Amino acid sequence: MHFKFKIDESNHIVFSSNKGMELEDEINETNDYYRRFNMALIYKKPTPIKIVKCKDNKISEAYFLESSTTDYNGVYKGKYIDFEAKETSSKTSLPLANIQPNQIEHIENVLAHSGIAFLIISFTSLGRYFLLTGETFLNFLREKNKKSISLNFLEKNAFEIKREIIPPLNYIKILEKIYEF
Amino acid sequence: MHFKFKIDESNHIVFSSNKGMELEDEINETNDYYRRFNMALIYKKPTPIKIVKCKDNKISEAYFLESSTTDYNGVYKGKYIDFEAKETSSKTSLPLANIQPNQIEHIENVLAHSGIAFLIISFTSLGRYFLLTGETFLNFLREKNKKSISLNFLEKNAFEIKREIIPPLNYIKILEKIYEF
Repeated sequence: MHFKFKIDESNHIVFSSNKGMELEDEINETNDYYRRFNMALIYKKPTPIKIVKCKDNKISEAYFLESSTTDYNGVYKGKYIDFEAKETSSKTSLPLANIQPNQIEHIENVLAHSGIAFLIISFTSLGRYFLLTGETFLNFLREKNKKSISLNFLEKNAFEIKREIIPPLNYIKILEKIYEF
Repeated sequence: MHFKFKIDESNHIVFSSNKGMELEDEINETNDYYRRFNMALIYKKPTPIKIVKCKDNKISEAYFLESSTTDYNGVYKGKYIDFEAKETSSKTSLPLANIQPNQIEHIENVLAHSGIAFLIISFTSLGRYFLLTGETFLNFLREKNKKSISLNFLEKNAFEIKREIIPPLNYIKILEKIYEF
């Protein structure tokens, strides 16, 4: 487990208790915790890149590709787990433009194969986090013709994840309430 | 489905019926087939790289990293599927040096979480393919102090995958015989 810290004006070390961590760090730390305590085996997928020039082990020209799937996947109690993490600085909603069409299709596919798919949404200005199931997310897309998912909708239809110190975002605890394992 | 072809000496197009494909291509094509026909959702993970220099979308210095997991994962009937593909030009055995310690540890972890883990082994000189379950592989490592897995061992303890045209390596058919879904 790593802690972030800074030196304050009086030259004291101030641990930030992970305040200001980015969502990706918080999720990676949570997944590290799950692995260390043998609770689940979930990894962030490497970002796909297109390699243009490469000699031996050194890549000298490459470009980021858009992922055709989601960011995280793995296994919990034998079940396939798959999710995408999105953050917004808005205090009222997550713009849907943040979610690529191929990611939506991937969520549909995971559900069609009886996997567990969801989004973790972080409102960075509010310090609030929600787990939105793939099923509810797809229903929302079918029924509403909106450009964003409102905080209000999430408060009613998603599960709030309370930020803790260790692990930062215990989303497995939420999954245990929703699904049968 | 893509077909490989070449032009022969008489300027006729000769379809190669995928002869000479590499194992990775054969597996990717099999996974494409599974996705197209909604049989399973299994992807090759991108190769992890360490990015040293990067501006906007362009990476100008990066290096390949050793993967801490296996090459392929995904979902079949709700279950987590995870495997590694290895090929050898030997006619008698697969050298164990081909399999990294962190990959072995990853297979142990997948099994501990009730996922399905296995190896697909290709003997390129023989045109023969085997599916070796994670369980049998780990037992082999515990019981034997060998530097390679012999073809003979695989013939007795693994499942041969017969090469077909479409999909090239129908490993799900083998999994259906071994596991309950």
